[in-house]
Amino acid sequence: MFNELGGMNLLERRRVRTGIEGLDYLLSGGLPEGRTYLVAGEAGTGKTIFALQYVYKGVEYGENGVYVTIDERPEHIVEDALTIGWDLEKLVDENKLMLVELTPYFASVKKINAEKIVEDLKRFIDEIKAKRLVIDPIAPLIIRSEEAIDLISAEFYVRNYIRSLIFSLDELNVTTIATSEIPTGTNKLSRYGVEEFLASGVIVLSLRRVNGTFSREIYIRKMRGVEHNMDVHTFIIQKGRGIVISL
Amino acid sequence: MFNELGGMNLLERRRVRTGIEGLDYLLSGGLPEGRTYLVAGEAGTGKTIFALQYVYKGVEYGENGVYVTIDERPEHIVEDALTIGWDLEKLVDENKLMLVELTPYFASVKKINAEKIVEDLKRFIDEIKAKRLVIDPIAPLIIRSEEAIDLISAEFYVRNYIRSLIFSLDELNVTTIATSEIPTGTNKLSRYGVEEFLASGVIVLSLRRVNGTFSREIYIRKMRGVEHNMDVHTFIIQKGRGIVISL
Amino acid sequence: MFNELGGMNLLERRRVRTGIEGLDYLLSGGLPEGRTYLVAGEAGTGKTIFALQYVYKGVEYGENGVYVTIDERPEHIVEDALTIGWDLEKLVDENKLMLVELTPYFASVKKINAEKIVEDLKRFIDEIKAKRLVIDPIAPLIIRSEEAIDLISAEFYVRNYIRSLIFSLDELNVTTIATSEIPTGTNKLSRYGVEEFLASGVIVLSLRRVNGTFSREIYIRKMRGVEHNMDVHTFIIQKGRGIVISL
Amino acid sequence: MFNELGGMNLLERRRVRTGIEGLDYLLSGGLPEGRTYLVAGEAGTGKTIFALQYVYKGVEYGENGVYVTIDERPEHIVEDALTIGWDLEKLVDENKLMLVELTPYFASVKKINAEKIVEDLKRFIDEIKAKRLVIDPIAPLIIRSEEAIDLISAEFYVRNYIRSLIFSLDELNVTTIATSEIPTGTNKLSRYGVEEFLASGVIVLSLRRVNGTFSREIYIRKMRGVEHNMDVHTFIIQKGRGIVISL
Amino acid sequence: MFNELGGMNLLERRRVRTGIEGLDYLLSGGLPEGRTYLVAGEAGTGKTIFALQYVYKGVEYGENGVYVTIDERPEHIVEDALTIGWDLEKLVDENKLMLVELTPYFASVKKINAEKIVEDLKRFIDEIKAKRLVIDPIAPLIIRSEEAIDLISAEFYVRNYIRSLIFSLDELNVTTIATSEIPTGTNKLSRYGVEEFLASGVIVLSLRRVNGTFSREIYIRKMRGVEHNMDVHTFIIQKGRGIVISL
Amino acid sequence: MFNELGGMNLLERRRVRTGIEGLDYLLSGGLPEGRTYLVAGEAGTGKTIFALQYVYKGVEYGENGVYVTIDERPEHIVEDALTIGWDLEKLVDENKLMLVELTPYFASVKKINAEKIVEDLKRFIDEIKAKRLVIDPIAPLIIRSEEAIDLISAEFYVRNYIRSLIFSLDELNVTTIATSEIPTGTNKLSRYGVEEFLASGVIVLSLRRVNGTFSREIYIRKMRGVEHNMDVHTFIIQKGRGIVISL
Repeated sequence: MFNELGGMNLLERRRVRTGIEGLDYLLSGGLPEGRTYLVAGEAGTGKTIFALQYVYKGVEYGENGVYVTIDERPEHIVEDALTIGWDLEKLVDENKLMLVELTPYFASVKKINAEKIVEDLKRFIDEIKAKRLVIDPIAPLIIRSEEAIDLISAEFYVRNYIRSLIFSLDELNVTTIATSEIPTGTNKLSRYGVEEFLASGVIVLSLRRVNGTFSREIYIRKMRGVEHNMDVHTFIIQKGRGIVISL
Repeated sequence: MFNELGGMNLLERRRVRTGIEGLDYLLSGGLPEGRTYLVAGEAGTGKTIFALQYVYKGVEYGENGVYVTIDERPEHIVEDALTIGWDLEKLVDENKLMLVELTPYFASVKKINAEKIVEDLKRFIDEIKAKRLVIDPIAPLIIRSEEAIDLISAEFYVRNYIRSLIFSLDELNVTTIATSEIPTGTNKLSRYGVEEFLASGVIVLSLRRVNGTFSREIYIRKMRGVEHNMDVHTFIIQKGRGIVISL
Repeated sequence: MFNELGGMNLLERRRVRTGIEGLDYLLSGGLPEGRTYLVAGEAGTGKTIFALQYVYKGVEYGENGVYVTIDERPEHIVEDALTIGWDLEKLVDENKLMLVELTPYFASVKKINAEKIVEDLKRFIDEIKAKRLVIDPIAPLIIRSEEAIDLISAEFYVRNYIRSLIFSLDELNVTTIATSEIPTGTNKLSRYGVEEFLASGVIVLSLRRVNGTFSREIYIRKMRGVEHNMDVHTFIIQKGRGIVISL
Repeated sequence: MFNELGGMNLLERRRVRTGIEGLDYLLSGGLPEGRTYLVAGEAGTGKTIFALQYVYKGVEYGENGVYVTIDERPEHIVEDALTIGWDLEKLVDENKLMLVELTPYFASVKKINAEKIVEDLKRFIDEIKAKRLVIDPIAPLIIRSEEAIDLISAEFYVRNYIRSLIFSLDELNVTTIATSEIPTGTNKLSRYGVEEFLASGVIVLSLRRVNGTFSREIYIRKMRGVEHNMDVHTFIIQKGRGIVISL
Repeated sequence: MFNELGGMNLLERRRVRTGIEGLDYLLSGGLPEGRTYLVAGEAGTGKTIFALQYVYKGVEYGENGVYVTIDERPEHIVEDALTIGWDLEKLVDENKLMLVELTPYFASVKKINAEKIVEDLKRFIDEIKAKRLVIDPIAPLIIRSEEAIDLISAEFYVRNYIRSLIFSLDELNVTTIATSEIPTGTNKLSRYGVEEFLASGVIVLSLRRVNGTFSREIYIRKMRGVEHNMDVHTFIIQKGRGIVISL
Repeated sequence: MFNELGGMNLLERRRVRTGIEGLDYLLSGGLPEGRTYLVAGEAGTGKTIFALQYVYKGVEYGENGVYVTIDERPEHIVEDALTIGWDLEKLVDENKLMLVELTPYFASVKKINAEKIVEDLKRFIDEIKAKRLVIDPIAPLIIRSEEAIDLISAEFYVRNYIRSLIFSLDELNVTTIATSEIPTGTNKLSRYGVEEFLASGVIVLSLRRVNGTFSREIYIRKMRGVEHNMDVHTFIIQKGRGIVISL
């Protein structure tokens, strides 16, 4: 939130390095520990690579991670990481990473229990003493109300649901990256339009058409308690390194 | 509402200084006392910093404050303020500031009681003889109707609800800042589209993309009974000072 | 509706001066007596100042007025007028102005009675022999249907409701200014999209961003039976004079 | 529909002159007799003046007219016409014009009977042997379905309703002008989006902001069986003459 | 679908000439026989002239036609064709053309039977051994579901309905032109947004405002199995010839 | 996802050549095997040609295919392919291709069974040992919920439905191309706005109006685990070759 980088923050929370080259510098060190952050982008902007890099580098820094996948098979995630050069299975075998597929929860539309999900997450986190959590993506966790509701109530219901989810996550003593889908062709930051107000920070990934090609961009849209840079930076995705921001 | 600054306002209400450098000048002294004002902006525009500065500086001016947080944990608020250099806990210990978390009211979606909220606020205000109140943000206070309603009725319901809330706040003898979420990517000023018509004033915070970066802007959109400046000013957020407007 | 100003209108209705400098000239003398006009604008465009000026100047011209406020406390209205230099309380004491707060009608969402509102208005008008009526704003008077209705029916319901309200007002033998909220960020002229078709005239107030500031604009959008100017004029709000249009 | 004006139309229907200077030329003589045409425009574009001119000049041409007003009082219509110099009351007294107020039909939302409306219109037309009919405006005639309906059904219901109304009108042996409200700030041609497909022709009136003023424009958007000009013309409203198109 | 015109198509379906000068050239000979095509356009773009020309010229080519009109009276269609110089009544008398008014099906909203419509069409086609069918327009054939449905179901319902209608038409051994209303002021190609995906081809008619006039344009948007040109061409409507495309 | 082409991908899944000249190069070899990809485009952009080329060339490469058609008759598909020079019937006779019409499933709106569809697909795939599957298009497979649902639930329902469909397809050991309709005139990538987030990759086909004609464009919007080019390329559809991309 500060426009001038480089000051001292004696009283601040410990920072969690994102593992993304350049980004930690833009964040004056990293993400404040123990909170929930959105990585928002349309389809194909690199949200999953960002999330993978966050947990993979986390292990390198000595912080274990739980990666919750909902819309993608864990074996696909493993393969995709491998194409960049990140061997997740090795980390899983070493008990440094846990890949969780939440999809079975949705097999039956009617019996999902939000509290049960958080309880399970807590158990996984405890099991490998994780410090990092990824939820990729957050939208499908917003489960439907048990009764049919009108629009005003829906607004109210979704907000309370997401707030309560984020509050529960914050109690797990991990730093959470939740990916947020920007509906294609809109100027929104999230599926429901409230996620960005409830998260402690928002990092935006986008594709910008310039002449006959697309360029990847990243910027920090919101970051509570952090002196962050407000420039829009381009980035590439590189084998062996993942996301590399041009400063 | 006046285009010429500097006239004398012998009959006007006492003004409440916002504590934001530059803004009080633009407001010809401050906000008329005892009313409710919106600070509107998208996610990441600095609404919470504005609200914190309002109560923190208020204490410096000898006016105690109640800060109601709904979507954020009070401990997060304390931390975020500390990163700027504002020690809220000290003020809390000195009984000059009260940090209230309204979230428990929403634990159960069905049993919220708007009158009970206002009663509680009144009690808190009396307890520390507060002159300033912050509600950050106002949108989640618009609780759902007890029965399913159609669109026309929803319009009617929400308007009456917000009017009645603001009227109740005005009776508390405090000057209230309510933050208002501008849904990302819209040209609205609030979540429900009526808040700006019911508040006594609206101050807008925004992010403007200029070339490869974002610039912070502030302007006074509406201010009943005040000779206010109508320019759009840029501002920065600075350690130790908070929001600093460039005049 | 005429493009050439200055012709003689021997057969026209008596004109009611708006009291707004410049506007009466643009209207070739004023508003045709006994009808209902909309003053439309987004939040912060000056609708309430316009309405206040209309009744305040009305008293100067020897025409008493009833000012109906719904979303604002009468004491706020009095204060706001005072900041411009208009002492409404004096007029109230002299029985030349009546300030009516319709809000209590809405205390209970379910028991509003539109006919009762008009009856009460009639009583107030008779009491001080008012010639001018202000309804600020008109939108909350569109009360919900007693039964849930679909969209087609809502369109039908709202139109009939507003028509019947305006027809009733026209029978009160006053000239009415109703303020109309333009939902922020839209190109509409009213909340429900039919008010402008049912009123006898529409005057639009707006804010236009020009470089780094906002400029106030006014134009006559519709005016039945009046040779009106079609230019867009800028205006300022000045202490002691209220709205002053630049011709 | 023809791009080249001036050809002979030996086999065409008799043409009805609109009475609007310039327009009959653009229509190669006038409107084909016995059909229904829309005059579409936003609020304040001159639809009612157009409709008045159509019936007033009609009487001059020896064709009586019925003018149905729904959202406006007949006495207002009379006054507005007088400001232009058209004495409708005289025509009414001479049994050449009938001014009908359909509003009482809507006093009770539930008991409107579309067939009854057309029957009544037929009676009025017969009574003065009218050749011209105006419905100003058409939208409120689309009355609500007796049962609540979903969106698909609404589309279906409204279309059938309007088609059946227009077919009934065509059987009355008059040439009908129905005014159509363009919802302000949209690019539509009518309230429900189907009227323009069901009418035999559409004439559009609009206001175009040019620099600091508004200019009036007219063009023929659709005209079945007519060689019409496709240019956009400006027009003014002039005392004594009404709408005058600049060719 | 081919970008290069002029190749030989030995294996293709027989082509049906549209009868529109220039268009058959752009279609490399005409429309593949036995399928359903959309002619899409806003109100006033010339869809009905296109459809009339298709059946009128069809008779000249020795192919009889059935013209189904839903929103327009057959006698109006006859008149409109006459203004161009096409004598439909003669063709009807010679049993080469059948003009069918489907409107009576809609007299009662509740008893329409889609299968019955197709059966009747089949009977008409057999009666005059028609090879060409026009449905002008297709939208009103999408009749409402018998039960109230939600939005997801509506999407599903409408798609199935239109698919089944087009499949049935394709079994009638005729080549069908269905006109499709582009809701005025949108960028859609049809009323329901799925028609263009289900038809075998889409030809678009539009009006383009160029300076102070409107110009007529035509282009082939989609054409299964046809090497078609992708340019946007202007056209005029000429007495004696109908639509004439400028190549 | 990589910005630099040409690196080695030792650990990657086997690649499936699309058979589209130029595209396999842009994909660094082809589509990762065994997943589901969207080919998204408005009506008339070439989605079906793309899908046909994928299965036709697949047979040339020794990989059999199942082509599921829902909105188009199989005999039409055969004809359309023939116009390009692809003899599908021959492949069908040789048991290398299976053309499946899913439409009968939709004959009755109420009795569709998603699991049954996937089971049948599995049987077809096994029957000819297919390695490639096309679903053209995917939207109609999103069948309606058995009960009426509100908007929040619909979002939840559709997402779960599509996820479960894609997960089931991935278990069939084929590489799937599903065509996705971009609703005409929107900036979306799919009918429901979630398909692009659930598929492993998205290839976009579009028509761009340049001066007086339309140009065909293709780009890779998203491709999990693939170093793909991000340029927008033009393409043509050529007899004998199908889609040919200009590199």
